[in-house]
Amino acid sequence: MTGRRQLVALRYEDDTLWALDQTQLPFREVELPLRSAEEVADAIVRLSIRGAPLIGVAGAYGVAVELQRNPGSDALNHACALIRDARPTAVNLAWAVDRVARAVGRLVPSEQAAAALAEARAIHAEEEAASAAMAGHGADLLIGTRRVLTHCNTGALAAPGNGTALAVVSELAERGLLEEVLATETRPLLQGARLTVYELRRLGINHKLIVDSAAAGLLARGAADAVIVGCDRVAANGDVANKVGTYSLALAARAAGIEFVVAGPTSTIDPNCATGADIKIEERDPDEVSRVHGQQVTMEGTRCLNPAFDVTPAALITALVTERGVARPVGPETVASLLRA
Amino acid sequence: MTGRRQLVALRYEDDTLWALDQTQLPFREVELPLRSAEEVADAIVRLSIRGAPLIGVAGAYGVAVELQRNPGSDALNHACALIRDARPTAVNLAWAVDRVARAVGRLVPSEQAAAALAEARAIHAEEEAASAAMAGHGADLLIGTRRVLTHCNTGALAAPGNGTALAVVSELAERGLLEEVLATETRPLLQGARLTVYELRRLGINHKLIVDSAAAGLLARGAADAVIVGCDRVAANGDVANKVGTYSLALAARAAGIEFVVAGPTSTIDPNCATGADIKIEERDPDEVSRVHGQQVTMEGTRCLNPAFDVTPAALITALVTERGVARPVGPETVASLLRA
Repeated sequence: MTGRRQLVALRYEDDTLWALDQTQLPFREVELPLRSAEEVADAIVRLSIRGAPLIGVAGAYGVAVELQRNPGSDALNHACALIRDARPTAVNLAWAVDRVARAVGRLVPSEQAAAALAEARAIHAEEEAASAAMAGHGADLLIGTRRVLTHCNTGALAAPGNGTALAVVSELAERGLLEEVLATETRPLLQGARLTVYELRRLGINHKLIVDSAAAGLLARGAADAVIVGCDRVAANGDVANKVGTYSLALAARAAGIEFVVAGPTSTIDPNCATGADIKIEERDPDEVSRVHGQQVTMEGTRCLNPAFDVTPAALITALVTERGVARPVGPETVASLLRA
Repeated sequence: MTGRRQLVALRYEDDTLWALDQTQLPFREVELPLRSAEEVADAIVRLSIRGAPLIGVAGAYGVAVELQRNPGSDALNHACALIRDARPTAVNLAWAVDRVARAVGRLVPSEQAAAALAEARAIHAEEEAASAAMAGHGADLLIGTRRVLTHCNTGALAAPGNGTALAVVSELAERGLLEEVLATETRPLLQGARLTVYELRRLGINHKLIVDSAAAGLLARGAADAVIVGCDRVAANGDVANKVGTYSLALAARAAGIEFVVAGPTSTIDPNCATGADIKIEERDPDEVSRVHGQQVTMEGTRCLNPAFDVTPAALITALVTERGVARPVGPETVASLLRA
């Protein structure tokens, strides 16, 4: 991404993990100094740090900063438990914390902090490399695409480097052919309106914001050549669970006859999950629906349903882009071969 | 609707048109006393009164209240022009005002007010009867349906009587078989979250609110047996222009294999419009997207696209319910036969 200002969602400097507070974006750019496992866990719980790959990296640094102030196996176990529990459903978080714990487990206390930091930095670098690889594969696939529609936030605020789906978008822009991005606001938490717009502006990519329900009609009228989204979990058959609203975009893309591309690291593929029907859809706090930025938008006491995700069948997905390459068409064989790659 | 509290969006009493101020709903129930054409036009401009059939009736009463305080042909012409211009694209408004003007045109000034009021009351009664007829036809069609999903607001706040699509829903509830309504919030202006929830609570109908983009995934998981929506314009071939997000719901209903029903008076059918491709999609103020209840939800200066409507092809609509009966399947022949009925 030469020539563009790289967004730094997380950085380690002066014995401190600095995290851009995503709850305050785009209205205020505030970096939180995090110097203990408790402070890191808190920032993850409060969604100041979000996005599965990004919270994994934050968790790894969280163990390192804790060991700096307080080395020893008790502190290590305490730090790991605290961070792992911050968001128990995020696979990346437990995976990253366990990896740091393994790296420092048999060392004497005086050597632990440096080893933990080295492992955290390694995880961070690997995730950045995965993002760059995904961006390259995705841009090769979509080369020539002038207008893209995307959903939620899948950029540098969600994953180290330039993110997942938005990394593909910025790579297309870098190659000079992208003209416009349509970003959905992504109710209920407005990650599109708040975070994707913020990232696209920093990247200097021409964009327009729309309400989620406007996407289908705009695609029918030819407003985009491709839809590209991230993923929270990919089943063995290629069905994808992602931010609520993704399935609706896939139906609209199919009806419009355009590409519907999913981008994510191979770590999101769950070979133990046969199909999308096996994915449990998390139901979140109904207040996310009844309020916008804390302001009530319906009658007090209104019951709300708030599924956080939906499932898009593999048959609607034209390609799955990972750091190891592209599955196209998306199905059990192509997904399995990505895992073997 | 015996046994239920009828919502009165508009009533004429004590030489005054009383209008429930829809901009303040559901948080405050305030009736505005309107005693001149200017006050009525203002209330329509400010969206205190909305919904094509409802503003038509309000416009007719607006001419009547003006003639009460100030009879004569100058006042009549002034009142008609003022109200007709309040929302120039609303066909019902011009139609209702012209009908009152014809009814009083040749009368001496002293007789005008009474004649105008009689004509406004006749229009009001006809619209109520159309709503009741639509409700009956729609409920006959959907009898046995337990769970319905609806979009935007199509009830008593949008059309005299019980409305259009929501009139069908309340008739199904009246017949005792309806268990639950899923209401979409309907960004950008949140008519579902504000107005439909308000109406369903008053009607005592069990309901839940969802964000617009959650509908497709919920329908795929069997959360509703039918989708029912209103319409802003129906082309001669049965394509329907309606509130943005309608097309997306039609795609999701088709994928889920459930009914997708459109309800509206035959006056919404435009025989001069051959297909949906001929319907111009109104682009509204981008601030509706960038703000929620006046609060900024994205970065200042973000460009937004805000199409007010989208077009649903006739092939996705399983039935069109009008006051004259039902078109099923929906196509040029069945639509034309409704117009001849």
